Amino acid sequence: SLFADLLRGFVCRQQVRERLKTDVEQMKLQDPNFTPGLVVLQVGDRDDSNLYISMKLKAAAEVKKDIYLQLVHLSAVLHSITEVNENSSVHGLIVQLPLDSIHKIDTEKVTNAVAPEKDVDGLTSVNAGKLSRGDLGDCFIPCTPNGCMELIRQTDETKANGKRVVGDVDYASAKDQAGFITPVPGGVGPMTVAMLMSNTVLSAKRFLESHQPGKWNISYTKLNLQKPVPSDIVISRSCVPKPIDCLAREVGLLSDEVELYGKTKAKVQLSIIKRLQAQPDGKYVVVTGITPTPLGEGKSTTTIGLVQALGAQMKLNVFACVRQPSQGPTFGIKGGAAGGGYSQVIPMEEFNLHLTGDIHAITAANNLVAAAVDARMFHESTQSDKALYNRLVPLIGGERKFSPVQTNRLKKLGIEKTDPSTLTEEEITRFARLDMDPSSVTWQRVLDTNDRFLRKITIGQSPTEKGHTREAQFDITVASEIMAVLALTSSLEDMRQRLARMVVATSRGGVPITTEDLGVSGALAVLMRDAIKPNLMQTLEGTPVFVHAGPFANIAHGNSSILADKIALKLVGPEGFVVTEAGFGADIGMEKFFNIKCRYSGLRPHVVVLVATVRALKMHGGGQTVSLLEFPSNLELLEKGCSNMRKQIENAQHFGVPVVVAVNAFKTDTEAELDLVCRVAKAAGAFDAVHCSHWAEGGAGAVALGQAVKRASEAPSQFKFLYDLELPIADKIRIIAQKIYGADDIELLPEAQHKVELYTKQGFSKLPICMAKTHLSLSHEADKKGVPTGFVLPIRDIRASVGSGFLFPLVGTMPTIPGLPTRPCFYDIDLDPETEQVNGLF
Amino acid sequence: SLFADLLRGFVCRQQVRERLKTDVEQMKLQDPNFTPGLVVLQVGDRDDSNLYISMKLKAAAEVKKDIYLQLVHLSAVLHSITEVNENSSVHGLIVQLPLDSIHKIDTEKVTNAVAPEKDVDGLTSVNAGKLSRGDLGDCFIPCTPNGCMELIRQTDETKANGKRVVGDVDYASAKDQAGFITPVPGGVGPMTVAMLMSNTVLSAKRFLESHQPGKWNISYTKLNLQKPVPSDIVISRSCVPKPIDCLAREVGLLSDEVELYGKTKAKVQLSIIKRLQAQPDGKYVVVTGITPTPLGEGKSTTTIGLVQALGAQMKLNVFACVRQPSQGPTFGIKGGAAGGGYSQVIPMEEFNLHLTGDIHAITAANNLVAAAVDARMFHESTQSDKALYNRLVPLIGGERKFSPVQTNRLKKLGIEKTDPSTLTEEEITRFARLDMDPSSVTWQRVLDTNDRFLRKITIGQSPTEKGHTREAQFDITVASEIMAVLALTSSLEDMRQRLARMVVATSRGGVPITTEDLGVSGALAVLMRDAIKPNLMQTLEGTPVFVHAGPFANIAHGNSSILADKIALKLVGPEGFVVTEAGFGADIGMEKFFNIKCRYSGLRPHVVVLVATVRALKMHGGGQTVSLLEFPSNLELLEKGCSNMRKQIENAQHFGVPVVVAVNAFKTDTEAELDLVCRVAKAAGAFDAVHCSHWAEGGAGAVALGQAVKRASEAPSQFKFLYDLELPIADKIRIIAQKIYGADDIELLPEAQHKVELYTKQGFSKLPICMAKTHLSLSHEADKKGVPTGFVLPIRDIRASVGSGFLFPLVGTMPTIPGLPTRPCFYDIDLDPETEQVNGLF
Repeated sequence: SLFADLLRGFVCRQQVRERLKTDVEQMKLQDPNFTPGLVVLQVGDRDDSNLYISMKLKAAAEVKKDIYLQLVHLSAVLHSITEVNENSSVHGLIVQLPLDSIHKIDTEKVTNAVAPEKDVDGLTSVNAGKLSRGDLGDCFIPCTPNGCMELIRQTDETKANGKRVVGDVDYASAKDQAGFITPVPGGVGPMTVAMLMSNTVLSAKRFLESHQPGKWNISYTKLNLQKPVPSDIVISRSCVPKPIDCLAREVGLLSDEVELYGKTKAKVQLSIIKRLQAQPDGKYVVVTGITPTPLGEGKSTTTIGLVQALGAQMKLNVFACVRQPSQGPTFGIKGGAAGGGYSQVIPMEEFNLHLTGDIHAITAANNLVAAAVDARMFHESTQSDKALYNRLVPLIGGERKFSPVQTNRLKKLGIEKTDPSTLTEEEITRFARLDMDPSSVTWQRVLDTNDRFLRKITIGQSPTEKGHTREAQFDITVASEIMAVLALTSSLEDMRQRLARMVVATSRGGVPITTEDLGVSGALAVLMRDAIKPNLMQTLEGTPVFVHAGPFANIAHGNSSILADKIALKLVGPEGFVVTEAGFGADIGMEKFFNIKCRYSGLRPHVVVLVATVRALKMHGGGQTVSLLEFPSNLELLEKGCSNMRKQIENAQHFGVPVVVAVNAFKTDTEAELDLVCRVAKAAGAFDAVHCSHWAEGGAGAVALGQAVKRASEAPSQFKFLYDLELPIADKIRIIAQKIYGADDIELLPEAQHKVELYTKQGFSKLPICMAKTHLSLSHEADKKGVPTGFVLPIRDIRASVGSGFLFPLVGTMPTIPGLPTRPCFYDIDLDPETEQVNGLF
Repeated sequence: SLFADLLRGFVCRQQVRERLKTDVEQMKLQDPNFTPGLVVLQVGDRDDSNLYISMKLKAAAEVKKDIYLQLVHLSAVLHSITEVNENSSVHGLIVQLPLDSIHKIDTEKVTNAVAPEKDVDGLTSVNAGKLSRGDLGDCFIPCTPNGCMELIRQTDETKANGKRVVGDVDYASAKDQAGFITPVPGGVGPMTVAMLMSNTVLSAKRFLESHQPGKWNISYTKLNLQKPVPSDIVISRSCVPKPIDCLAREVGLLSDEVELYGKTKAKVQLSIIKRLQAQPDGKYVVVTGITPTPLGEGKSTTTIGLVQALGAQMKLNVFACVRQPSQGPTFGIKGGAAGGGYSQVIPMEEFNLHLTGDIHAITAANNLVAAAVDARMFHESTQSDKALYNRLVPLIGGERKFSPVQTNRLKKLGIEKTDPSTLTEEEITRFARLDMDPSSVTWQRVLDTNDRFLRKITIGQSPTEKGHTREAQFDITVASEIMAVLALTSSLEDMRQRLARMVVATSRGGVPITTEDLGVSGALAVLMRDAIKPNLMQTLEGTPVFVHAGPFANIAHGNSSILADKIALKLVGPEGFVVTEAGFGADIGMEKFFNIKCRYSGLRPHVVVLVATVRALKMHGGGQTVSLLEFPSNLELLEKGCSNMRKQIENAQHFGVPVVVAVNAFKTDTEAELDLVCRVAKAAGAFDAVHCSHWAEGGAGAVALGQAVKRASEAPSQFKFLYDLELPIADKIRIIAQKIYGADDIELLPEAQHKVELYTKQGFSKLPICMAKTHLSLSHEADKKGVPTGFVLPIRDIRASVGSGFLFPLVGTMPTIPGLPTRPCFYDIDLDPETEQVNGLF
């Protein structure tokens, strides 16, 4: 019969399927979660009942996703192709175009838009080129000829001679009466589909060969270590950063999720959180320190050194998440803040200057609120209630309307009306008059400049302000509540709400007045729309870094953003690491990291890295002055000073998380000194203690630290908060003072006592506590080193940061804007107009 | 003989050459400046005397450029390839790799990095794929087989039968005794080279077919016009902008010259000026207006409508160059400033908010100077000369050194010493003590916020400043001298110098104290490093826009940057147009455009577009109030008011440039009214006058204007300045007052008289004049409409903006920071957290 003479494609297909099944099982041995993925992108109508497609879908248990595009719009098709190209869980992509409606040029554009390594149909020119050159190990053979070849291969050659091959199937006759498709019992059709599956499995195999499952396919940058170690800017400049879009791809970001800001910085869109929501988080590591000298003990440098070790040296997925530094100190005393030596975020001048403008956005948003506060008080003082109301709800085209933000205020006032003409006189007064008490205004203006002359000023002295002068002040921008909101928010929606909750003053009647009452909250969200997206940069060794938010550690919580940490934890995946830094010593930054940041984020840390230096420990042992940078080797002094480290280890243990001590080695330290510190640390209960030399050697100098951290991350940990939010304000403060600082008790001075009562009445008592205390001592007195005891912690005042969500008790006076010294850093900073290089940053 | 049996490649090559010569001549008919370009990129040593390369170079008169890379570094090679790929004057690229030192994977990467349309060697996979499919119309046949085929084609087929083909040439024997290469008299070698040339010419031909010489290959965005015209933000949002990197490519920017800021904004590097220095400039058009109502008469809208017409409608290369708006008014009264209706820069929210951070950079730079001024006065007041000097030139590692900026100050003081230890006591005092008179400080702090309470303040009231209080003020950021510097600078080097020349105060001895004296000038250049690069955006119809610098038109010159204009003029080429807008009416913005901006840029305008509205002209005719937005049709009132337009036409004619009047039609205007204005304009000497409806119809509504501008640009023009810089200050002011404003004379009030003397003594009298006068009248009194006469212009004071390079006489009091009304715009502005869309901007 005719049938008997045919090569049986149907039978042959079965054999191919068996083989593929075995192949996929093999792959699953390597990674149980791995599945070859095929996407069929059909352009045009879905109900175009194409038999070929139907067969593909039926045959392919491996088909992950089918995209049907209703709109035949070239740019939309290309966009979808790009998305699939970049999706690492898809290994094959075929595009089914309608035969009629598309021009030749478009067809070619679409065909060639498919990434050659996913072109399982073998239709791209690149594939054809490789095929024509016989470069078979690297290309896909188009499915129909491949099917023919497979048929022939599986058939006894002698029998195949003279046989007829079915080129095209009569699809209509292949349908049974119910309209379902019965496979044609022979011919090439089934083989084409089988070969498509075969190519997809082949592509998946190739992918697995070049990509370890869950491991980034990332290239690291080699360091060229010099001795002596050059200045930070010289090291930073000597290293060519990878194009940031490359790095973004390497860590699994799709191009649509990335907004480039030049060649070395990018913003990452929050939509990625939704895309990766099913992905398990990586390990979460926080870097903190002992009580430091005023010069700092290298927490940032250790953070960067550690990720360089975990990434470039140990080949683990790892992200550093760090704060954006204020620009003010860059031109003042401190210089740059991008790490140091061979452990830096690069380019350091981008990191230290405007970055992508987030801090500038905060300055703009903060000062819009300040202008709104004073302008509102001014307008209220010069207008009747009726006039105010008529201006606030103006007649436009014969109609009065409340704006949405005004509707929110009405709700707060309990006025359930939507028609402005129906408000009673009393309601009009309550609505239109915020009645802020000028002496109660807590909202300050900000600048990202060290301008000491703005610490206390009198405003409103121009005749146009009609004598409404008052005392005010400027703070440094990073001290703005909006910065704390940015750091603690978890989504755009949440940020919008936090920005609306911020309290700027109290009315004469004792009601807290918010930015929402001022009508400015929506504008703030608009100004912060880009700032909410984390900024991607890289380390000297090419590992990724998120730089996002930098709330002042003095009066805010001093930790980088929750959003950056969350995204990074998804991107690194379950075997990866995210390392973030908490400002100041463990008594300040780490305590706030746990009790505030982790409370709002819901994230649970796996390891605490506690940075210690021999220099600082000697100071705690009684070394007298700070200007004396290096002490001669003195084991006795050192051992005495280790008390501070012991206390800070204990502080971390309060939270139930394993501690690894990193002794940041200086060239003047002796081996005996470094060993002593490690010994004491382990005796005090640290999971491990190692010395490291990442400043001089980059990641290679922190491999021991990286290994210790990896082991610690596998150890059991029982995270717990230090206090319950439901406790009264004073009790929460007392717990921190006693357990963390070692105080005997606290003393609420009258202003603080008053605020406890006010905030309790206003309903803010359930907020966590953000202590504003010196970082130079465990106590409130900066000169008390080691582990001070027998003191009572005085609480001068308490402020509320309602939008960001904490109360901050003031222990002593906190400077909120630094000044410039006689010879500021800027004397050395200049631009080479020829090379466009920045000189003199350090 | 053996020779006679060979197909004569040498002879055959001659025939190919003849053919190519004819082809190139043909192309030159289309564009005389066109030459096919071939680049040979040889990786490795130059002195690797490769015969094949030598022959190529010898043979190719068309070879434009040879790049020899000494470093075999993959990324460098790929970078060079990308550069050549994007260079539109090169049509062929071959990469010669060393045979030994490169791994297989690299070779493939390099080969496939060549753009397929320039791959004249036919080596990319894409080319091979097309070739294998027989897609010959679109690919290049590799040169050696192509040469063989050509040889065979040119030979009588019967004779070719049985002939031997030389596969490889014995290069060594092909050299003559002097080491020069003699062409092998037969064989494929010469044909390979000939075919390379042939492919290059073929590629050039294809390029010419798809690119009109000097014309961009740009796609325009179609408008979907709605009636009634929706709000600006609704129109802006309804239009999907082209990816900005696409637009950059379309207008001839190379990818290395563009720094993306997200998907809709990009910065353009100044290096392009050097690359295009030989390119002739396009036509230069300035848009100005009659004396406006306080609501403005649509200059920005006309600017954008005009470029949409010239570009999307008339298919000419065209750039709009506009100012970046201050963010302050966006949240205050004014709303957005991106044009309006169907003539807008998009996305309008990006345009109106942070853009790429240039204004924020100016705020930071400006306030660093202010902080430096007060901190320096403070430190000088509390320290001895010796102590000051020791801090300014500190001992570091046993050594004292002057920083470069300090060396500049020494030079200014005439102290020719480099060793800090050799200064005399008197020299130390002069060097270390700037001795600024606090009452002479002219440098103010700035914010980009409408904060009226900062108009006059007292600073330094914190106890830490020890009683050194003084009165000061904040201005809006766009009023900063640094903004004017940005607008007027011509290069990074020039900006560095201007930033150093800025005068902040006068010493008690009468010496002007500059930012260079403060040591802060280098830091300013660093802060402004990115801001100097123009920002690329697009119009609703997809034509390119530079948004760059926005100096306050009140006390500065109110024009966008010189750099953006210069780059745009190169990019559009000699047949293209650059349209820029000058702030306020022609008496202010246009006068400053000519006398200040064109003087510094050296650019000469071809056409003035003067925007007029029936509404404003009626006001000038005696219509009483401004709140009355529309007057009923009244030809008499209108004709009377046309006097103002007549005077502004005359003002433009003072500069010898043809004027086209654009009557911006409102829906309430009658045809008779619009015609009357055109008639009067032409009678007054305008080159042409047309009405336009781009607000409602986009570029289609401004085609008549576009055509008039095109014709005017071809008319003769004799540009001349209004005054000579060498004239005394008062004379220059008088010329402007009399010729432009129509004043009888000027009157210098005592403070102004004093400044004339001071600035003349200080050597600043040769600067151009930037009048700070109301824009609402030709006179100094805002309520004098039409053409006021018989007045004397009072000059209250004069200020110097030495870095930007002008003196600004104050006519009356200029507000330098706006305020917020009772109900600011921000009440309506909000962010949709779901879609991330901005609502309520207008």
